[in-house]
Amino acid sequence: MPLSKEIVAALKKICKDRCFTDQESLLLYGYDATRISHQPDAVLFPVSAGEIADILKLANLHGIPVVPRGAGTGLTGGAVPIKGGIVLSTEKMNRILSISKPDLTAEVEPGVVTGTLKQMLESQGLFYPPDPASSEFSSIGGNISENSGGLKAVKYGSTSNYVLGLEVVLPTGEVLWLGRYTHKGVVGYNLKDLFIGSEGTLGIITRAVLKLIPKPQTRSTLFATYRDVYASASIVTDILDTGILPSAMEFMDHASMNAVSSYLGADVFDTKAGSALLIEVDGEQEETRRAIERIAAVCKGRAVSMETAHGPDPEKLWTARRAISPALTKIKPFKLNEDVVVPLSKLPDLVLGVEQIAVPLNLNYANFGHAGDGNIHVNILYDARDDDEYKRALTAVDRVFDLVIKLRGTISGEHGIGITKLNYITKELSPAAHGLMKGIKHLIDPNNIMNPCKAI
Amino acid sequence: MPLSKEIVAALKKICKDRCFTDQESLLLYGYDATRISHQPDAVLFPVSAGEIADILKLANLHGIPVVPRGAGTGLTGGAVPIKGGIVLSTEKMNRILSISKPDLTAEVEPGVVTGTLKQMLESQGLFYPPDPASSEFSSIGGNISENSGGLKAVKYGSTSNYVLGLEVVLPTGEVLWLGRYTHKGVVGYNLKDLFIGSEGTLGIITRAVLKLIPKPQTRSTLFATYRDVYASASIVTDILDTGILPSAMEFMDHASMNAVSSYLGADVFDTKAGSALLIEVDGEQEETRRAIERIAAVCKGRAVSMETAHGPDPEKLWTARRAISPALTKIKPFKLNEDVVVPLSKLPDLVLGVEQIAVPLNLNYANFGHAGDGNIHVNILYDARDDDEYKRALTAVDRVFDLVIKLRGTISGEHGIGITKLNYITKELSPAAHGLMKGIKHLIDPNNIMNPCKAI
Repeated sequence: MPLSKEIVAALKKICKDRCFTDQESLLLYGYDATRISHQPDAVLFPVSAGEIADILKLANLHGIPVVPRGAGTGLTGGAVPIKGGIVLSTEKMNRILSISKPDLTAEVEPGVVTGTLKQMLESQGLFYPPDPASSEFSSIGGNISENSGGLKAVKYGSTSNYVLGLEVVLPTGEVLWLGRYTHKGVVGYNLKDLFIGSEGTLGIITRAVLKLIPKPQTRSTLFATYRDVYASASIVTDILDTGILPSAMEFMDHASMNAVSSYLGADVFDTKAGSALLIEVDGEQEETRRAIERIAAVCKGRAVSMETAHGPDPEKLWTARRAISPALTKIKPFKLNEDVVVPLSKLPDLVLGVEQIAVPLNLNYANFGHAGDGNIHVNILYDARDDDEYKRALTAVDRVFDLVIKLRGTISGEHGIGITKLNYITKELSPAAHGLMKGIKHLIDPNNIMNPCKAI
Repeated sequence: MPLSKEIVAALKKICKDRCFTDQESLLLYGYDATRISHQPDAVLFPVSAGEIADILKLANLHGIPVVPRGAGTGLTGGAVPIKGGIVLSTEKMNRILSISKPDLTAEVEPGVVTGTLKQMLESQGLFYPPDPASSEFSSIGGNISENSGGLKAVKYGSTSNYVLGLEVVLPTGEVLWLGRYTHKGVVGYNLKDLFIGSEGTLGIITRAVLKLIPKPQTRSTLFATYRDVYASASIVTDILDTGILPSAMEFMDHASMNAVSSYLGADVFDTKAGSALLIEVDGEQEETRRAIERIAAVCKGRAVSMETAHGPDPEKLWTARRAISPALTKIKPFKLNEDVVVPLSKLPDLVLGVEQIAVPLNLNYANFGHAGDGNIHVNILYDARDDDEYKRALTAVDRVFDLVIKLRGTISGEHGIGITKLNYITKELSPAAHGLMKGIKHLIDPNNIMNPCKAI
């Protein structure tokens, strides 16, 4: 149902020349990285919590869906306006409000691009560890809404570990400050973490105070290839058994490596290898050097090849790693890109299990991801023009999720539920837990205007 | 209102010989470390989530308050049954259900003593970092309910950073599993962290899955004394500016050091010093040695004395640090022991501000605590027999909280609100945020049986 002239006029009054209803805008702001698309009725670019409060009051009164949108890099359809209504982009709220080196904090608006902030902090000797592979494009607000993880989570944890305080606007238009400016604090219920990862279904984040740490002095990298996936997946717990906590420990299978080499048009990886681990240790110079040598000693036994690098990132390897996801379209134009997590000791069971599920269904697949915290991106590849293949891909995903639950894992480690995983959450959540989540949603958003039909 | 014979009989049927209504039990389980006391009507020691579910169903039906109790070491009255009813002790649910070294997880019942678990893990090369000063006595369930911090939070964060999954029993008797067994996960709203730090007002924790990390190889310690509090408080940010994140950075003032020396009957500290910093760095052997040397170079300029130690803990210093809180009773029999937090750069303003508040009120006071995360224990000392002094002490606390809020701090970093800080939370929480917390409490506990009149 398109918005009435009166409502569009009211929205234009709030957002001035930052309210769009033209076809081009509606098309551009109707999809995200899933390539699922649905047209909204208006796209707004507010610049303050006050404007957002006014928009939400109006939407709440008229029952208009409001879909918050960061940079649109989400992988589960969180920013797709499947019920139409308003897409509320935080792109123009992109100021870094303050960086305090002595307090080890930064205060930012939601539209700040994560990579931009990270770079600015690092130039001052500061470090904001969350590092989703999308960080060059994705925004802090989106990262917080999804509780994004990324490459460094094995040592540093996910986004939620670095959010101290949040300003949010509720569907009623109330502006709330949750959390604090300090590194520690326990006053009141932890509502901040209720909003983190809630995928825009409870309110809109308008400001965040982030915790920083001193920037690690340097890094060392180890790249080791293995004959098969089992060999690399099963060595992960041996590496952690050294007592060293790497700052990244990435796994990739043969298909992932092959796809990247073809995508980047260069022999980045040894395409004969069955799998590989890309490991980074950060810290003080001599320490990282010794740590990577100790890890190398563990990896050596079964590795086919091994190379180490110290100091600045070996760009070739990390750029290649970050390119895996887009590169997979070289094999098939579409993919069901999951982000399951299993207990570390179950990694070999997971990678072998995926093979046992995909091969009989005659599907291409690729596994890669954050082995150090058990978070593997299982990609089932398909061609959307082939109906039967698409159906088989869906069957595979369903079976992968069942396997993950059997291994005491979770169906999403960092991408969120959005719309693409909504049908599967009852595999993981008990009816009682799910019911309580719905109760809280109803308490905060009784008219169900905030990103309806998502997350829970 | 005492419990009817029928209800006591029903409770005895659930808990068998672990239900007590004798005077001695009621007395023993009526107080916590605040020394505030109120008699319950029954004390129960359930051994399973099933028993707890039956107790809560009964209590919910009859509107009987239920106060969960760990080890009773809390400092804000959280375990004191101020409305009578049932004290539900988790002491007998003290099994370590599993420790998985490869998965870096442990599964425990709530009554496990934190120190016992830490020791058992360390003997296996594993590390559970949360380290409240009470860890030799306090239990995991209590730590989770308060989101306990402690000495290592500066580097490792508080309890919430190490809880992956929780089993909780709601006031309705429903048993919920929240969170996961894996290190990462974002499925559904984060209700786990809503329960963490909720001080037993939403339900009872019956099982927890904890995240572990590899045990750091070794530690190095630096103890530096200063002429006055300003000198040590203002050097904290300089130390962090080295890029080294100490695993502990404790501050103590003259009064704290003096009290401990007298309490332990030994010249632990140079009692002429105006203040001191006790700093620990953990990690690999050579690295910690170099790190502590670099920190020493920063501390040197204004320090009066300095000593370093490598390898096993210099027991004398850390035992003394942990004894400060009980030692303060050597000065005055009672204390208002607060745990305020300020942004790191505001530490000097805080310690000077406390002096400016306490001196004109003619009060003894002592400041010590976790300088590395801005969390200082401000202790206002008094004698309960002196009514006027008690009133002045309350005035001082009120002014300290106002100062803390002005400095953008929080009135509690790790002790929680309980009953002792309940009158002050509106200094920090906005009516809107407070209102939402009450709404969630009402949603989960409509009959307000869970630890009534606490936390929010």
